[in-house]
Amino acid sequence: MFKVRVLNEEVIKQVIDMKQVVGAIEEVYRLKSNEKTEVFDMVFHEFERGVADMDIKSGHLKGEDIFGLKVVSWFKDNEDKKLPMLIGTTMVFDSKTGMPIGMLNAEYITGMRTGAAGAIGAKYLARENSADLLMVGAGHQATFQIAATLISMQNIKNVRIYDPIDSNNAKKLAESMKELLKDKFLSKYENTDLYDEISKKFNVNFEGVDDLEKAVKISDVIITATPSRKPLIKKEWVKKGTHFSCVGSDMNGKQEIDENILACARVYVDDMNQALDVGEIEIGIKNKTISKEDIICEIGDVIVGKEKGRLSEDDITVYDTTGIALQDLMTSKIVLDAAKEKNLGVVVDL
Amino acid sequence: MFKVRVLNEEVIKQVIDMKQVVGAIEEVYRLKSNEKTEVFDMVFHEFERGVADMDIKSGHLKGEDIFGLKVVSWFKDNEDKKLPMLIGTTMVFDSKTGMPIGMLNAEYITGMRTGAAGAIGAKYLARENSADLLMVGAGHQATFQIAATLISMQNIKNVRIYDPIDSNNAKKLAESMKELLKDKFLSKYENTDLYDEISKKFNVNFEGVDDLEKAVKISDVIITATPSRKPLIKKEWVKKGTHFSCVGSDMNGKQEIDENILACARVYVDDMNQALDVGEIEIGIKNKTISKEDIICEIGDVIVGKEKGRLSEDDITVYDTTGIALQDLMTSKIVLDAAKEKNLGVVVDL
Repeated sequence: MFKVRVLNEEVIKQVIDMKQVVGAIEEVYRLKSNEKTEVFDMVFHEFERGVADMDIKSGHLKGEDIFGLKVVSWFKDNEDKKLPMLIGTTMVFDSKTGMPIGMLNAEYITGMRTGAAGAIGAKYLARENSADLLMVGAGHQATFQIAATLISMQNIKNVRIYDPIDSNNAKKLAESMKELLKDKFLSKYENTDLYDEISKKFNVNFEGVDDLEKAVKISDVIITATPSRKPLIKKEWVKKGTHFSCVGSDMNGKQEIDENILACARVYVDDMNQALDVGEIEIGIKNKTISKEDIICEIGDVIVGKEKGRLSEDDITVYDTTGIALQDLMTSKIVLDAAKEKNLGVVVDL
Repeated sequence: MFKVRVLNEEVIKQVIDMKQVVGAIEEVYRLKSNEKTEVFDMVFHEFERGVADMDIKSGHLKGEDIFGLKVVSWFKDNEDKKLPMLIGTTMVFDSKTGMPIGMLNAEYITGMRTGAAGAIGAKYLARENSADLLMVGAGHQATFQIAATLISMQNIKNVRIYDPIDSNNAKKLAESMKELLKDKFLSKYENTDLYDEISKKFNVNFEGVDDLEKAVKISDVIITATPSRKPLIKKEWVKKGTHFSCVGSDMNGKQEIDENILACARVYVDDMNQALDVGEIEIGIKNKTISKEDIICEIGDVIVGKEKGRLSEDDITVYDTTGIALQDLMTSKIVLDAAKEKNLGVVVDL
């Protein structure tokens, strides 16, 4: 009989905090660079093309003695049934014994770890004095990306939000951003030394914009998190020294920025194989605008100091993050540990 | 928030019964033959060769509107830690919405569904008047195989048990078999119409034997469930009309019967691809004793009447069953339904 802790979204939201998640995802990248991780083959199945699919991503964090998997399904018709279209479940196992340790709702953790990934790209690759952040995409991911990036960077002053589908989304999100950041993220740090530091970092200008070209031209850091299948950002718009974290492309055919930007940038990825297959770089590689050899390295190699990030203030840098199961496992583990300490969740005998 | 029913082994043992499992596994084969199932790619990982590994088998039972997966790990050193070496967990999802439905300890269900599989081979391929059953292997699987086969066949009179490692195992198991069958299987049917029928079927002779050749020569049905990597049963020993259900070979390099038996037999499998990869037929195919074209069909095609089983009383028949995730999913579903009806297990919010 095994004791398995089951955590739903409500409990996860209580114990998770973004600064810790950023640290955890950095640690995943570090372990990956040091060959303390293994990514297993992905299982993908379409129940009906364009209507319903599921995938199982799994892997092993040797450095943390856990392995596990995340099952994510997407059912388009769930909207009519008042159910979420995306449903995810993560299972964590002890890699010293094989024993199951936890089962977790994967949705909120996916949002958090994806936000952290985009921010880590900016932290290690953007200019340190970056002041202007542009968020492209005002969907579910935007708040996570903005929170994580503000926490991870030191000098952001302006956050502009652009939405390719409806500029009203961007305006509304910008208006409510201060409150969202306070409720969802800052509240975690009440009565801690971090509160003032993070409160100050969140105290910047937020603006919804509808002219993407104009916004790109004055941005130091650009994060893209859209479902786009054609480039939204043209090469001519991009100023010297800009950093991109491309978060949206995680599937064949997705693309958010002009592949010619990649050709003149220093390009980094989270996982080489997955990025080549389904990342932002996929299209550029396929139409030979860039080659695999042009990719500098995985971001973990920069974090541990094996490879260099930007070489000058003028470099354009791109971080292509596709999301790997290891991020979910690591974040799930810190959430499980925190829940255990606070005696939260339900412990079942399996 | 989703309601997920969690069932541990204790609850599963309360609600599962072998006759129902045999019916469920037949239904899986039927659905498979009618293309109402999909087997996804298997994920396999060796943490350390010969010391620890894990696999994730998954699939979709369209006919039952469920999909899911079974994670099984094997850690050799668990024995020293007083933990089971094999640990399995099954997750079941609704394939109309993607919602998680249940998480189950997989061990006992694996035993039951594997027993049912061997028995179904005998039921559809052995001679109807088969009276002598030989169980090769006195390990964990033997009791499940014997129970399922006695329930599924009509005329078994003698059950002989042979163990390739230690003949004392076979003797001990034979001596305790009546009690085991009563406690583990017959007790499920108390106060039902089935009780007398199954009680009668279980009332046969059990004998532990140490001369395999002699036992093979007088057997009508032979079930092999050993971890053998070399043939235990020679072709010269096999009498006309014998049926084999080969259960043990589920991994590269495993083999229980002389491949020359396959060359003169009508051979059936549970899943063509998996059997070719890792089943009893693997070695015979690889050394060209038989070819893929010699395999008659998957057993489901016999059950639904698309293909013939044995053609004469003299045919030797072989059923090579490797075990597929669909069996675990189907069995898990009937167990979840039974537990729900009896309000057993723990329902958690995920």
